[in-house]
Amino acid sequence: MRARYKPWAADFIKENTDIVLPEPSQYFGKWREYFSNDAPLHLEIGTGKGQFIKGMAKQYPNDNFVGIEIVESIIVSAVQKIKKKQLSNVRLLNEDAMDLTSIFAENEIDMIYLNFSDPWPKNRHEKRRLTFPYFLKQYQQLLKPEGKVVLKTDNRGFFEYSLASMSQYGCIFDEVSLDLHELEDPTNVMTEYEEKFAAKGQPIYRLIAHIPK
Amino acid sequence: MRARYKPWAADFIKENTDIVLPEPSQYFGKWREYFSNDAPLHLEIGTGKGQFIKGMAKQYPNDNFVGIEIVESIIVSAVQKIKKKQLSNVRLLNEDAMDLTSIFAENEIDMIYLNFSDPWPKNRHEKRRLTFPYFLKQYQQLLKPEGKVVLKTDNRGFFEYSLASMSQYGCIFDEVSLDLHELEDPTNVMTEYEEKFAAKGQPIYRLIAHIPK
Repeated sequence: MRARYKPWAADFIKENTDIVLPEPSQYFGKWREYFSNDAPLHLEIGTGKGQFIKGMAKQYPNDNFVGIEIVESIIVSAVQKIKKKQLSNVRLLNEDAMDLTSIFAENEIDMIYLNFSDPWPKNRHEKRRLTFPYFLKQYQQLLKPEGKVVLKTDNRGFFEYSLASMSQYGCIFDEVSLDLHELEDPTNVMTEYEEKFAAKGQPIYRLIAHIPK
Repeated sequence: MRARYKPWAADFIKENTDIVLPEPSQYFGKWREYFSNDAPLHLEIGTGKGQFIKGMAKQYPNDNFVGIEIVESIIVSAVQKIKKKQLSNVRLLNEDAMDLTSIFAENEIDMIYLNFSDPWPKNRHEKRRLTFPYFLKQYQQLLKPEGKVVLKTDNRGFFEYSLASMSQYGCIFDEVSLDLHELEDPTNVMTEYEEKFAAKGQPIYRLIAHIPK
């Protein structure tokens, strides 16, 4: 996701450490303690401007949500949304996704969401795709045995790659949809991208998978 | 595939037992003997009017091809194509696909093709879909360890079902394409359906999978 450079973003993040948690590895294995309950923990990787995680946090007020987004100029929009709604069950991390296993312990996460991830279409960038085996291995470790990965994208090439890469890694697909909005799933929370593409009638692809240990 | 009823079809099939082999279980475990060579054996399930298998047999003249088609009024078109081209490396079976393991021995087949199979969209007909576990189990038995299933369809629902059903059975996807004709694969042999749908610009879905024993 691209955004205009916001020179104030870094300061804004520092002023909102109640929402964008600094040094998140301090919560390793203690996320339920941090949220002060035993509710399911949902992780979105690449939270962008936060529409999805805000919508999910409102829809499931008893669950806990953590969103990771590396771009400062983008994550600030998510911070603003969460502040405005005073949501106490969602927190953000201004981190990359390379080192998730230092932030979350084994079996600590119930659901992982990959929404409209950067497709990195060039072959030489394959390693950066969030369904490259390096990342799948992290998800496998962090997810509970019954946990799921939910991936949505409008990018055909990325979806094709993900189906093959995940299958070859050992993921099992519980459900695949090649035109999500045909389903009219009332529980589906849309991202900014999804709203835009769906309005144009472009198909949105979704898969739900689990990763046997 | 639907076809006008052809009252002469049954007789025509009986007159062409060099192409439509009667009592195919007599070749169980002996298909290479029948073809008098050790070439790879390809099986198409639901051969329809035969354009695909004819094209493949011409493209790979050193390989052997067997096509199964249950509807008499349809298989006769395939017989005519094969007669006309005098193809000696392709044979047809006027059988259903319920009992493949009585016709082919374990590890006897190199490739299985499912082309534009009947999608059986109603839930209560799930068992008839050619990617229902009953059929996958047969494919697993018949295919060599390095053998592949190649599935092509224009039917979104059937493709979604097949991805989930095959994944849950234990198939591994080597390749998935959600718009085959974008690829412009020069080795792709088109079926009658495929030509028609591709000409209309409708996406053709394809997967290539293997099934670990």
